[in-house]
Amino acid sequence: MRNFKMLIRYDGSRYKGWQRLKDNDLTVQGKLQEVLNRFAGTYVEIIGSGRTDAGVHAKGQIANFHLDTDASPEDLLNYFNRYLPDDIAVIELKECAPGFHARFNAISKTYRYTIRTSNIPNVFKRKYEYTYTDYPLDVEKMKKAAAYLIGTHDFMSFCGNSHMKKSTERTIFSININEKESVINIDYTGNGFLQNMVRIMTGTLIEVGSGKRDPESIPSLLEGKKRSLAGFMAPPQGLCLMNVDYSAKG
Amino acid sequence: MRNFKMLIRYDGSRYKGWQRLKDNDLTVQGKLQEVLNRFAGTYVEIIGSGRTDAGVHAKGQIANFHLDTDASPEDLLNYFNRYLPDDIAVIELKECAPGFHARFNAISKTYRYTIRTSNIPNVFKRKYEYTYTDYPLDVEKMKKAAAYLIGTHDFMSFCGNSHMKKSTERTIFSININEKESVINIDYTGNGFLQNMVRIMTGTLIEVGSGKRDPESIPSLLEGKKRSLAGFMAPPQGLCLMNVDYSAKG
Repeated sequence: MRNFKMLIRYDGSRYKGWQRLKDNDLTVQGKLQEVLNRFAGTYVEIIGSGRTDAGVHAKGQIANFHLDTDASPEDLLNYFNRYLPDDIAVIELKECAPGFHARFNAISKTYRYTIRTSNIPNVFKRKYEYTYTDYPLDVEKMKKAAAYLIGTHDFMSFCGNSHMKKSTERTIFSININEKESVINIDYTGNGFLQNMVRIMTGTLIEVGSGKRDPESIPSLLEGKKRSLAGFMAPPQGLCLMNVDYSAKG
Repeated sequence: MRNFKMLIRYDGSRYKGWQRLKDNDLTVQGKLQEVLNRFAGTYVEIIGSGRTDAGVHAKGQIANFHLDTDASPEDLLNYFNRYLPDDIAVIELKECAPGFHARFNAISKTYRYTIRTSNIPNVFKRKYEYTYTDYPLDVEKMKKAAAYLIGTHDFMSFCGNSHMKKSTERTIFSININEKESVINIDYTGNGFLQNMVRIMTGTLIEVGSGKRDPESIPSLLEGKKRSLAGFMAPPQGLCLMNVDYSAKG
């Protein structure tokens, strides 16, 4: 049995996220499964690095699958891209170590959230940005607030799943906020993220930037461990999974 | 009466082009008219630099309109962007000389056609590119062929309107072809373009690049003055109006 690793990009606009839940849900994993199952003539599970929410995009999703085949990685890559819809693409596909597991071996992930702060939309990127113009955003305050989120914390207050029974502790390695010509990009790198966590952190940082919250309110918000203490959930279209890291830490 | 000039961007995917033909056609001009007419309380004609075909995009369309108003250009710009759909944006709006006419005063226009030559689509730009993978494209041959198109010629063979009764003579100032990482951009600058002309030139250049035609066949093609002599019409989504020039020539 050979093990294959692939780098996937998708425009998540029309999908109910990565994960295949019910047979009729339109999901990215489901579309990939359809193509791979057809190639293999049987069900071959595609293991993603993790789920992305409905409407969220990816430039660097990673997945792997085990398959007994004589086909070359290039043949497989071409097969995927021939039959996938044009909003999903396999960018790279190569054979990997037999024990590689896209979810278990992931050390860190980087998500980017893109906010446009101008009334003038970018018509060509409008599906990949969230336009926020209610108040001007003070990026320095957002950076101060973000600093409190970095490190190992219980992120219960930032978890969109109120029935979460597993640990809600996660480690955020870095949050980089950059502003350029009416666009604010927030890059979050961490060892993992809870459901909706990046979008809730983004909504909270926007509330700080707009003056509704103080940066110094973040520690008590983390300590309170209640979703209602955090900010609004920023909409999905501004979010993109940029990278999944499997190399040794540090 | 004040005269206002505006710079407009649009994703043309869902429009039947720039021009308002019938009341029910979904057009870019129609959408702009709706907003301006509402602002003015009466019909105020928006004069575009020229038409773009159905499905063609613009980063630099120019239009003007005459209006008796106390509103500032900024107020007008904000009004447009508040009520326009998110695939049309007014990027700049300023008062201009009373005699300025977006169509008559245009000295040159630049269109870009974008071809992707890889089987791996760019999922985020797929609506703004034409993917051509039938044969590899020889860009040097395309450049040779393009050189024959530069200058003043009768472009009848490149005109999509078979009932064209006006002059089909146009001057092309430059055609620049650049290839970078599976993307070929062709920038056409000319004093004006006939209906579908840029797309037919692009299809013809693709046929040259793929080896179906010789670069040296272009002069006889121009001389023949028959649409059937030229190549296929490249699809609209790869085309974008980049710039309209009103400054003095050269």
